[in-house]
Amino acid sequence: MHNLGGRSPFRAYILSNIMNNTNNTTQSITKLFDIKYPIICGGMIWVSGHKLATACAHAGIMGLIGAGSMKPELLKQHLEKIPAGTNVGINIPLLYPDSQQQIELALKYGIRIFFTSAGSPKKYTSWLKEQGCTVAHVTSSPKLAAKCQAAGVDAIVAEGVEAGGHNGRDEITTMALIPQVVDAVDIPVIAAGGIGDGRGIAAAFALGASGVQMGTRFAASVESSAHPNFKQEIVKTQSDSTYLALKTVTPVRLIKNQFATEIIALEQQGATSDQLAEKLGKGRARLGMLEGDITKGELEIGQISGLIKELSPVEQIVSNLVSEYQSAVATLPKVL
Amino acid sequence: MHNLGGRSPFRAYILSNIMNNTNNTTQSITKLFDIKYPIICGGMIWVSGHKLATACAHAGIMGLIGAGSMKPELLKQHLEKIPAGTNVGINIPLLYPDSQQQIELALKYGIRIFFTSAGSPKKYTSWLKEQGCTVAHVTSSPKLAAKCQAAGVDAIVAEGVEAGGHNGRDEITTMALIPQVVDAVDIPVIAAGGIGDGRGIAAAFALGASGVQMGTRFAASVESSAHPNFKQEIVKTQSDSTYLALKTVTPVRLIKNQFATEIIALEQQGATSDQLAEKLGKGRARLGMLEGDITKGELEIGQISGLIKELSPVEQIVSNLVSEYQSAVATLPKVL
Repeated sequence: MHNLGGRSPFRAYILSNIMNNTNNTTQSITKLFDIKYPIICGGMIWVSGHKLATACAHAGIMGLIGAGSMKPELLKQHLEKIPAGTNVGINIPLLYPDSQQQIELALKYGIRIFFTSAGSPKKYTSWLKEQGCTVAHVTSSPKLAAKCQAAGVDAIVAEGVEAGGHNGRDEITTMALIPQVVDAVDIPVIAAGGIGDGRGIAAAFALGASGVQMGTRFAASVESSAHPNFKQEIVKTQSDSTYLALKTVTPVRLIKNQFATEIIALEQQGATSDQLAEKLGKGRARLGMLEGDITKGELEIGQISGLIKELSPVEQIVSNLVSEYQSAVATLPKVL
Repeated sequence: MHNLGGRSPFRAYILSNIMNNTNNTTQSITKLFDIKYPIICGGMIWVSGHKLATACAHAGIMGLIGAGSMKPELLKQHLEKIPAGTNVGINIPLLYPDSQQQIELALKYGIRIFFTSAGSPKKYTSWLKEQGCTVAHVTSSPKLAAKCQAAGVDAIVAEGVEAGGHNGRDEITTMALIPQVVDAVDIPVIAAGGIGDGRGIAAAFALGASGVQMGTRFAASVESSAHPNFKQEIVKTQSDSTYLALKTVTPVRLIKNQFATEIIALEQQGATSDQLAEKLGKGRARLGMLEGDITKGELEIGQISGLIKELSPVEQIVSNLVSEYQSAVATLPKVL
């Protein structure tokens, strides 16, 4: 099928796409979001503010404002600080009561790229499309991906269980998830979870993704709003430093600090949702990630944090990703 | 770094490896095990017998006898049935009391390729190397990988949490694990867990692996010893059909059948190890995987089983993997 004779590599690449009738072209993502590189910086609560999103835009990738932790007044402050004409998007988790108000605010401030999550893709997609927006929805299973496509989204973020923060209930890893989502839909798939360098991007594309969404790598950037204490914790983590906790309530991947260890112990004793909620209390995520209490606060991060060894400016991170990707692809044997 | 001018692609590939001082060449694996393709069919209890290992040898990959479920007498029967001169290896899990006897038997029958697991790599590696054997050890974390290298193994199998059957306690996914193991050691790394087709192989190589170990895909082969009922269950699974159970005892990934559902319910109620052991009883794995009781038996399989849609002969599976790999690599953009 791939005996392409003496044709040029580029022609072979295009032909190969046509022959496979594939949706796997990174151009679909760069065109969809008007970016140079097919990379999205995911929306992270208390971490993804106007500084990070703007730095991403300048580096040629899509930066999302993480609206999940923002009351409308705080979101407004962030939106006001984004320089006019900067190409940024927003992540709206649909499980909070403010989501409609957040969307309306974002529209008012000229945002036209929406990544919705943690709710039904049917809820706002048609309406956002009518407003001329581009919509992606985050999923954790091929079944949900098919529902997103039916709801009319432009792209799907397929997120594996290694991702930081709130997580799907299916516990499907990125390696197992991406090819199954790619096979289940005809629209572009953005891989998320466990991607920390250019090798990870190449792996995601090999699995059939057209773009990647990375959170953890950008949480450890100079421009993220994470508290310096939290950033240092990210750099210190090892491969086994995170844990998927609160599976019976809302699954979330955390650094195993003192707070998380207490929660895990309660879970292993078979604690009820009410007992867990009491232990959790309020404002733990803000306390840990924004205010820097690394003992009593909740520190949401992905499993790939073990790979992150330094804090860098966004521009440097993106430049590294581009060269790491090229190196990873160049060393791949063409045939087995 | 990769501006290689007008040189040929192959020369560019070799130069690139030299320039990166990388251990990432699939040749290291094909030479080490004297196989055509850098693919290992993993040792699976009740599934990997002489038929499957022999079929793998004929298809140009390394097939491992899964000694974990074999008392010495049964292992002897399998070893006797392998035609003389057939290039097969053996997986010896070190948690069973028979492992020394299993190794001695395998040596007597001419086996020279050993994949040890579930125990310390220090236990037998030096001795096996003195007997002229090639030794790989299975790990689930970069820390353990470094210990394997120190113990003198020839290669490391780095297995992510999506893998079927017995699993490490670290719950690190293949996507997060492989680059961290590759960075931690200088010897070749074989990626395992979540690899079901040629896209998965390409992804593993992009992450820095030099070979892959696949179990689930070959459990659903004509030549595996899995009961026909179990094979049909593998084909029927969806992406979310498996679960990592018995984390507090010995973590194992299973199909969520009636037996597994009962175990999971007990775990969520905070059952003790003794209560779980009582429910488990004896012989559940044999009952499910060899005898075909898909309700009351234990059905160990990887998360990637959702991708497997048909039973095929080993030769067909390998032929598909080779063409799928080539297609996945051909469609990868050279630059981001």
